[in-house]
Amino acid sequence: MAGSPYSLENDTFAALMLHGCIVLVKMMALALYTTTKRFANNSFVSSEDVLNKDRESRKEALVANENVERVRRCHLNDMENIYVFLLMALLYIGTNPSYGTALLLFRVFSVSRILHTIVYLNAVPQPARSITFMAGYGVCCYMAFCIMTSVL
Amino acid sequence: MAGSPYSLENDTFAALMLHGCIVLVKMMALALYTTTKRFANNSFVSSEDVLNKDRESRKEALVANENVERVRRCHLNDMENIYVFLLMALLYIGTNPSYGTALLLFRVFSVSRILHTIVYLNAVPQPARSITFMAGYGVCCYMAFCIMTSVL
Amino acid sequence: MAGSPYSLENDTFAALMLHGCIVLVKMMALALYTTTKRFANNSFVSSEDVLNKDRESRKEALVANENVERVRRCHLNDMENIYVFLLMALLYIGTNPSYGTALLLFRVFSVSRILHTIVYLNAVPQPARSITFMAGYGVCCYMAFCIMTSVL
Repeated sequence: MAGSPYSLENDTFAALMLHGCIVLVKMMALALYTTTKRFANNSFVSSEDVLNKDRESRKEALVANENVERVRRCHLNDMENIYVFLLMALLYIGTNPSYGTALLLFRVFSVSRILHTIVYLNAVPQPARSITFMAGYGVCCYMAFCIMTSVL
Repeated sequence: MAGSPYSLENDTFAALMLHGCIVLVKMMALALYTTTKRFANNSFVSSEDVLNKDRESRKEALVANENVERVRRCHLNDMENIYVFLLMALLYIGTNPSYGTALLLFRVFSVSRILHTIVYLNAVPQPARSITFMAGYGVCCYMAFCIMTSVL
Repeated sequence: MAGSPYSLENDTFAALMLHGCIVLVKMMALALYTTTKRFANNSFVSSEDVLNKDRESRKEALVANENVERVRRCHLNDMENIYVFLLMALLYIGTNPSYGTALLLFRVFSVSRILHTIVYLNAVPQPARSITFMAGYGVCCYMAFCIMTSVL
């Protein structure tokens, strides 16, 4: 391939654009969902967010709530994994991988993270979350391996 | 446009380089500001950071302080939004957007995040923070929409 | 240089692929290490992760443990710095920096973050952690400066 692989004409990059967009939108949805949960459980962190007027109920509204914290942990886990995936994938595209392999990796990652979110938010018994986590983690490991062998 | 849009010769990419750099530098400033706040309030998390010698005051210095926690929440919110913006924008450039639209989006995002930080750190009453947050969030939503329609 | 600098044929980009991959793999290792520490200290956050059956010991397993929290803080610090580095470096490549300078920057950053992790996890007395942090931070500042001067 002549020139840079980072262009819409490269099907592999187009696939990353699609799947990267999907997982980022999933993260953004989770950010809004946290706010919904904060209002539903009347649990906030910053004092200016509390709607209650009297002192006692203001204090109560600043106590952490497990329903909110679960969504936040899920969001944090996304930050630990989805950003790694996207940055790794951007470097991986540089190795000019075959379209079929790359598409499979991107699909497995997207599906694994969507399932991970569903499993996390609904507190599905283990090992459901571990399995969905490891699927996405494995994709990143494989891309790291491809980058290393390609550059060295 | 022939070849890849990821080059300084592409004005849209140059605009992303500038605005991406601005918001990343803003984040880096916040990281240092956290350290300043930790010393000002004598509030640390890791025991090796505490300067006090005697046992009682060491314990006190390991208690969370709201002034420090506010900066940390602001920093965490940046991680949830600025990274999403930059990764989304890198994919968005691949759709060869018009220079005017892209520049407007990048400017709105940069300004919204700078205002968000000012509003958050000074605990300005709501809905100031929600508005600055939603402006940046809207930019990411629009870019996601453009990527989806361009790829599909 | 004709065309885009984002290609394996550009030695500077190949260097980023290698060093970016190294620091991302380091982060991924830390994620797994957190899980190891959780089991070793029997300290979890989500109730479905606790293996204990009776109520009392389940409660105990949901208390935060300093050994686990230290690894998590180290991971969070990585998210605050490694993502910034990688995104900044991707923009920096667009300025067509000289190979020697870029390689030096990438090497300093990778080494500084690996040392930072070792120092953090072993609670080495300060200023060890501050120094390793500032080395990586300085690299990002320098790249930001180069991007700004190149674009403006």
